[in-house]
Amino acid sequence: MTTVAKEFDAEAAVGLFSGVCEGSLSHLYRSSPIEIVPDDTIIISEGVRLRHLHIVRRGVIELFAQAGESRTTISLLGPGESFILAAVVNNAVALMSARTLGGTELMHIPANLFRKLLKSDQQLLRNVACSLAGNFRGVVRHLRDQKLRSTNQRLAAYLVRLHQQQGARGVVRLPLRKNLIASLLGMQPSSLSRAFADLQVLGVTVEQDRVNLAKLEELETFACLHQRVDATDATPVNRYRKVDGSPERLEKKGIRDHEI
Amino acid sequence: MTTVAKEFDAEAAVGLFSGVCEGSLSHLYRSSPIEIVPDDTIIISEGVRLRHLHIVRRGVIELFAQAGESRTTISLLGPGESFILAAVVNNAVALMSARTLGGTELMHIPANLFRKLLKSDQQLLRNVACSLAGNFRGVVRHLRDQKLRSTNQRLAAYLVRLHQQQGARGVVRLPLRKNLIASLLGMQPSSLSRAFADLQVLGVTVEQDRVNLAKLEELETFACLHQRVDATDATPVNRYRKVDGSPERLEKKGIRDHEI
Repeated sequence: MTTVAKEFDAEAAVGLFSGVCEGSLSHLYRSSPIEIVPDDTIIISEGVRLRHLHIVRRGVIELFAQAGESRTTISLLGPGESFILAAVVNNAVALMSARTLGGTELMHIPANLFRKLLKSDQQLLRNVACSLAGNFRGVVRHLRDQKLRSTNQRLAAYLVRLHQQQGARGVVRLPLRKNLIASLLGMQPSSLSRAFADLQVLGVTVEQDRVNLAKLEELETFACLHQRVDATDATPVNRYRKVDGSPERLEKKGIRDHEI
Repeated sequence: MTTVAKEFDAEAAVGLFSGVCEGSLSHLYRSSPIEIVPDDTIIISEGVRLRHLHIVRRGVIELFAQAGESRTTISLLGPGESFILAAVVNNAVALMSARTLGGTELMHIPANLFRKLLKSDQQLLRNVACSLAGNFRGVVRHLRDQKLRSTNQRLAAYLVRLHQQQGARGVVRLPLRKNLIASLLGMQPSSLSRAFADLQVLGVTVEQDRVNLAKLEELETFACLHQRVDATDATPVNRYRKVDGSPERLEKKGIRDHEI
């Protein structure tokens, strides 16, 4: 494996560039500046046509959306993930804004070059199709949570999924500040506090960022999680969360010190 | 254009098969049974791995999701649209169920064959990537509506978009029964009735399926629609809605006679 391939393989968009020929990688790498971006910097504003596909090399990106006074977190991205692929592929405006949480290192791939390579590199195009399918499924799951579950059920589902990811029996550590969790789950911070209080009858007790789940089965039943539908796919997103989603790793990236 | 190409071009998945070589189309067509399916038939159940990519040739498909007692409409599909592409491309379980609304004609493309052709037919793969990107953006818009807008704002946004699609000044016709509109907008039918009543101060009055919008600008402002973000892309979904979304066309397909 050459230096260029290693670079992509180790740091950037593992799934997106997996198996892509050396010529394409080299072309991309030479044309794509790498930038270290400070905390709380807006990288993309919704409604703007994108000139770059951005790759997270280090740190965390929050994708969020706004309408009037309302603002919500759509997704959190980590190393190896790209944003916003669908808008770049279809040469359309961004439907989400992106900002850095903590110091972040990004690679900016020119959108025109990326679309040009999609025409000539079959493997890159295949990776893009699989990645878009995975992204679509991620948003569908998010939409299912929003439309099918009450605020309390959404919190229960979030805790059960964290528990599955972290693999520690009967206890999870919250990887994000509570304001950000509330935004991701589509509720006000005050509603999140109420939801945590309501879930006490299902064995949920909180000590700072440590949450004890004393009655896991009851919590799962309450959350109405479907074993196959609600489990996450083995996508790059998921791989990132398994590897980097622990509180320690996110703390290192500065996300826990970040006020939303 | 040969008969096979014409068949695909006229009825089925226009975007997905646009420009695809005759050999692939012919192979697909020979291997894909066409079926006329009665009203209210479940075609796909969420959680099941798909053996076919389904194409709507005539009629309407409702994609919906369930968790416990809760049920919600995710999308309505018409002629030229496929379901569920992302699950077929990634060989994963369906995250949504699908059922017919009214009599529907479907083409069932074997999923294995479709994935095999994706490896050999660059144009098909390119169409799939564009289609998945469009589908992703559609779900993001739906999620934005759910997380950023109140029930009243969601109804206002729905009416403003219908108005843009139907192009009749100050009046729209509801293309669906109110129970289905409520489910699509993520609310109970009783909440939809309240929302219609609340919007009277913004000039909204209803006579059966005809809705007068006397103060369109105020309604737009209230809905907090972003001109570029909230306008729909020119995708097959959109093409369908423009052509077939009028009450008359849906009535012909039986959707207005259908009790949800």
